[in-house]
Amino acid sequence: MRTIEWDEKKDSVKLIDQTLLPAEYKIVECKTSAELIDAIQSLKVRGAPALGAAGAFGVVLACINEKSKEDIKNRVERLKKARPTAVNLSYGANRALNAALRGRSTQEMKTNALEEAQRIADEDVAVNKKIGEYGSELLEDGDVVLTHCNAGRLACVDWGTALGVIRTAIEKGKRIEVIACETRPLNQGSRITAWELLQDKIPVTLIADSMSAAVMREGKVDKVIVGADRVVKEGVINKIGTYMHAVVAKAHNIPFYVAAPLSSFDRKRSYKEVEIEERSPEELIFFADKQIAPLEVKVYNPAFDFTPFELIEAVITEEGIFCL
Amino acid sequence: MRTIEWDEKKDSVKLIDQTLLPAEYKIVECKTSAELIDAIQSLKVRGAPALGAAGAFGVVLACINEKSKEDIKNRVERLKKARPTAVNLSYGANRALNAALRGRSTQEMKTNALEEAQRIADEDVAVNKKIGEYGSELLEDGDVVLTHCNAGRLACVDWGTALGVIRTAIEKGKRIEVIACETRPLNQGSRITAWELLQDKIPVTLIADSMSAAVMREGKVDKVIVGADRVVKEGVINKIGTYMHAVVAKAHNIPFYVAAPLSSFDRKRSYKEVEIEERSPEELIFFADKQIAPLEVKVYNPAFDFTPFELIEAVITEEGIFCL
Repeated sequence: MRTIEWDEKKDSVKLIDQTLLPAEYKIVECKTSAELIDAIQSLKVRGAPALGAAGAFGVVLACINEKSKEDIKNRVERLKKARPTAVNLSYGANRALNAALRGRSTQEMKTNALEEAQRIADEDVAVNKKIGEYGSELLEDGDVVLTHCNAGRLACVDWGTALGVIRTAIEKGKRIEVIACETRPLNQGSRITAWELLQDKIPVTLIADSMSAAVMREGKVDKVIVGADRVVKEGVINKIGTYMHAVVAKAHNIPFYVAAPLSSFDRKRSYKEVEIEERSPEELIFFADKQIAPLEVKVYNPAFDFTPFELIEAVITEEGIFCL
Repeated sequence: MRTIEWDEKKDSVKLIDQTLLPAEYKIVECKTSAELIDAIQSLKVRGAPALGAAGAFGVVLACINEKSKEDIKNRVERLKKARPTAVNLSYGANRALNAALRGRSTQEMKTNALEEAQRIADEDVAVNKKIGEYGSELLEDGDVVLTHCNAGRLACVDWGTALGVIRTAIEKGKRIEVIACETRPLNQGSRITAWELLQDKIPVTLIADSMSAAVMREGKVDKVIVGADRVVKEGVINKIGTYMHAVVAKAHNIPFYVAAPLSSFDRKRSYKEVEIEERSPEELIFFADKQIAPLEVKVYNPAFDFTPFELIEAVITEEGIFCL
């Protein structure tokens, strides 16, 4: 199934619980926007493009469970704030809400929202395929590509942005290997990227985040491709660690690419205006249930960082390759 | 107690089990060199200077348990190979073995080895204090110092190299704060550095390794100080991730210092001749008992990396500050 889907029979959102991967593959069902907010905040569903679809499907849930336009709008406002950094959540929710508000009955509102949400989900797959088409031209046969976090099919509705580029290149007959950084503190790289690449039999080597400079120095990396949570005026906001990889890639003359749909673009805004989500200290003090730091230690745990365009060779979108 | 000590009553080596910190503070006893090798390989005791003392105390255990000089030498050869990268293990073992071999009876050999081992342990503390003296001059009141892994009292017999510099600066009345990188995959930063700094009430903030570039960009870091496992012809071999921090520090014009005793120097050797220990893939596939990556994923897990002198402002030793 796709990363996130509408269940017609049950009138609910189905999604792959990404917190349980790779040990367990489980589908979770959300019947209310509150349940969906919880799934978003606990990262059962994550990744900017997937959050766009989640935002839109959340509007459908609000239309089903609320009676007045006012209540629906309030629900959607809360949904949009579930996570602050990726622009896609608001983008998807706004599109579906605008469609819903054109309806004259609650039934029509729900139907309109669902149509728009399905359109967003389908568009996302099509957009990823186009990103793959453009991006695959940048990869050469035999390339080793380093990536961070998960910008794969599980970060999207399907196919993926950064990993979509790799999938398309492989589909075209190029041999590509991937180095996946584990991506602390929540290990989306080891848990999700490694898992989805192995599912597709794409060769992948897992490293700790801090090893990227060393593997670059050893000549083991040809290119870096990552996704984006938001493309702003001066650069790209993406998973914490992205900036570090960009700095070390530049120091080793390795091209650093960002793959992102235009729905992640928010070019009128400066990175200074974007809220960088700071997550719980517990993510660094505990691992599963094991204590790995003193309980009283101060923790700085931003979920994202900012990388200026000077460090980015190009941004790969569904409309082509931008050198910003 | 010190990180590692000789127990006169029991004729054994006592050490703090560093794998259990910070949740549990437990003293482990080794009565044979085989037990000590196991403690070294499982990182119950780690850190280049502490391994120097461990190597020396291991010779005493060999003198107690073996009957002939030949058997003692064989035991010591095995001990020296317990971990390949830090030069101190061999350094300490060789010094104690040479002292032992001057003995005419097994009793005299043991006495000689123990005297030399105690001397190495005491020297280590004195050397750390001198490193602290020199290094503290490089720190200014109010500095925030980023460090990686643990080059503290638990990496040494006492006091510490990188953290020793910070301790001495604080003793002299300077206000210093520390940013500790968690140091994947074995989290010596979160488990050990954060713990020992909090024990001494030194302000410390824990971050994931990949956050160092972002905190530098945010202007939150004044200096970086790390330890060394071996100082070679062209630079420094230290915990994996050190090179990454050095590259990003250079990119942000932040001075990067290495604090290390001369016993870690091996300047005749090129980094290319030093074996970089590659540790088990399981360190990245499991965390405690939780599976965090596909079981079949390929893993690259070097325990150390190499940082060239071009990226290092100075090496702080017991004989002064070297710009190499």
